[in-house]
Amino acid sequence: MQSTQAKPMSAFTKIKRRPYSRYFTCGDDEPIRLDSGQLFGPIVIAYETYGQLSPTRDNAILIAHALTGDAHCAGHGPDDPEPGWWEPLVGPGRVFDTDRYFIVCSNVLAGCQGSTGPASIDPITNKPYGMRFPVITIRDMVRVQRLLVKHLGIEQLACVAGGSMGGMQAYTWAVEYPEMVRSTISIAAPGRSGAQAIAYNEVMRQAIMTDPAWLQGDYYGTPGPVNGLSTARMLGMITYQSAESMMLKFGRDVMNATSRDLFHFHTQFQVESYLHYQGKKLVDRFDANTYLYLTRACDLFDLGLGYPTYEQALARIDAPILVIGVSSDILYPTQQQLEVVHILEKLGKPVEYAEIDTPYGHDGFLIEFEKMTPTLNAFLEKNVWEHTESKCLGK
Amino acid sequence: MQSTQAKPMSAFTKIKRRPYSRYFTCGDDEPIRLDSGQLFGPIVIAYETYGQLSPTRDNAILIAHALTGDAHCAGHGPDDPEPGWWEPLVGPGRVFDTDRYFIVCSNVLAGCQGSTGPASIDPITNKPYGMRFPVITIRDMVRVQRLLVKHLGIEQLACVAGGSMGGMQAYTWAVEYPEMVRSTISIAAPGRSGAQAIAYNEVMRQAIMTDPAWLQGDYYGTPGPVNGLSTARMLGMITYQSAESMMLKFGRDVMNATSRDLFHFHTQFQVESYLHYQGKKLVDRFDANTYLYLTRACDLFDLGLGYPTYEQALARIDAPILVIGVSSDILYPTQQQLEVVHILEKLGKPVEYAEIDTPYGHDGFLIEFEKMTPTLNAFLEKNVWEHTESKCLGK
Repeated sequence: MQSTQAKPMSAFTKIKRRPYSRYFTCGDDEPIRLDSGQLFGPIVIAYETYGQLSPTRDNAILIAHALTGDAHCAGHGPDDPEPGWWEPLVGPGRVFDTDRYFIVCSNVLAGCQGSTGPASIDPITNKPYGMRFPVITIRDMVRVQRLLVKHLGIEQLACVAGGSMGGMQAYTWAVEYPEMVRSTISIAAPGRSGAQAIAYNEVMRQAIMTDPAWLQGDYYGTPGPVNGLSTARMLGMITYQSAESMMLKFGRDVMNATSRDLFHFHTQFQVESYLHYQGKKLVDRFDANTYLYLTRACDLFDLGLGYPTYEQALARIDAPILVIGVSSDILYPTQQQLEVVHILEKLGKPVEYAEIDTPYGHDGFLIEFEKMTPTLNAFLEKNVWEHTESKCLGK
Repeated sequence: MQSTQAKPMSAFTKIKRRPYSRYFTCGDDEPIRLDSGQLFGPIVIAYETYGQLSPTRDNAILIAHALTGDAHCAGHGPDDPEPGWWEPLVGPGRVFDTDRYFIVCSNVLAGCQGSTGPASIDPITNKPYGMRFPVITIRDMVRVQRLLVKHLGIEQLACVAGGSMGGMQAYTWAVEYPEMVRSTISIAAPGRSGAQAIAYNEVMRQAIMTDPAWLQGDYYGTPGPVNGLSTARMLGMITYQSAESMMLKFGRDVMNATSRDLFHFHTQFQVESYLHYQGKKLVDRFDANTYLYLTRACDLFDLGLGYPTYEQALARIDAPILVIGVSSDILYPTQQQLEVVHILEKLGKPVEYAEIDTPYGHDGFLIEFEKMTPTLNAFLEKNVWEHTESKCLGK
């Protein structure tokens, strides 16, 4: 195990190189056994940290990212111009207060923002893994995060928090390593993926894998499945919103066109133009094979996998857990959060549920910061800060 | 105008040739002015009829089909082995009682089941239209249906009924030709397409149009955009169901595989296998360009188009109208049916609303026959049969 600032080798050339990125290597001496049974390594994990670890090392919070996220959950102060994906929640005086907490955020295994993924160079063949990369699970992501956390000298996390695929990771921490988490926050995530979510993912994978430019995954050095990934993202963007929010935002408005232009296929409704823009934007920053592997990991996600029952897996959760649902979420509807909550309640676990009332759909967890803040603050104050011994950092 | 049994010329070779198909030609002497302003013709419309037109010609019901439907809404008795897409509702003693009513069902303009569409041979070039086919609207479909209805000697329809895109046509009849409809039934359809529905359609079109085998629409004589159309259908099938119905039907079950097989991309969850099957099945019976034109017609659908306001368009509706929503519809949610209903109520129009309570989603209108039957029977009895003079046919 080692931590370096060196760039990892990757055939994905659009990685955002950030001065605050750190890299942790594991599985080099001894490969890591994945859920599939496969031994795999070495694995490089890109991560960023914010704030300072307290002398008693009891103020660390791990933040886990969603499908297309990365380790940059927030900027690093005035010298870092680029805001992170959870910027309004992470920083001095914010919910995840970097004056109080030591925040760790890492790019997931199979990711394309610095961590080992399908675009990484397989040290045996000296070529990118492509589809020879092992199929991984959310639990595998967490397994590697645990090694990073240990490497940073942290024996127990004050909290693990995340939304969507990040929420799946948060749940997984609570179930798999209950002794290592003092609290958990899971937002807009199921305890196991449903058939409809799997279906959406398969359509997106299909768009990528039937694009001839995908080349069975060996497209590195070529433009790659630009159309397929773009189409996949367009669909993804629909599932992250809601009928209501899309209607509020776009209505039936048409782009730079008169009503006569409506009768041409090249004329776009605003919502079409928006989707195309989002599709292109993702292509510029994301690797298509990573999209395949991460959506597959989400499909395979089932907290009960490997346990006699789903309930028995949830029974392993010890620490206080805050589950947040988004009222208009069509990707992971609130019933899926409530399923977890009701089981935990039945088991007598310290679970809290809150619902963000918003038309924004699944993306609510990346938008409704003001609505989430009081709930998050109250939970962290009661379950984390009050139990954090070293309260003196920077204050 | 003429009616023949001759096969129309089409480059779409997978048309189901049915002995009961009839063909009506219009726009041959004088081309038809479409909503786009374009003059177009000749147009062939494939249609089927059931039952007998009464001597006073007051018992005709037009049934309009949805996106991938056709003129075969029901079988034609014991000699016709193939059931229609609304089989349980159409036939002797059924809701659309062929002992009482003369049922007409036609394949829409731009369709691929016998009516003139993008696969038809352009008489000027002697080649298939492809993307040179004009962009058409739901109103254009109805415009041509009206000519068919007139050709059949019908001055007024006892009822126009349909679900989904068929429901849009029903609404359009009521708004555009109020003097020609005695009643209307619109199921699981909006009065104007919303941004989310447009978005889904655009992703589906994108899947087709970025398939290199699409060849800018000039793929006739080649296999065509098999992957693109299949992916489009896979997505369509998700929007026709609901999270609940998919979970009930497929759960997280895996096809012929052990849990170890989960870690291969070729292993499919049942829901994935189902979607692939549905995708392939559509490719075997549907023309990709028609998919493009009909989804575009749905996007353009807005009853208010060409009127000062949406409300003023709805104010044209005269006859009793039954609006049915499907509780779990994610494609055209019940709010969209209720929007129409509330406006009509405010205008003092004879509107009735019923909701099918079902987990089946949008497809409920093709599944929940038992739940729909009492409502449909009551509406037809009161608003159609009681006002039909010739009640003696076959009874």
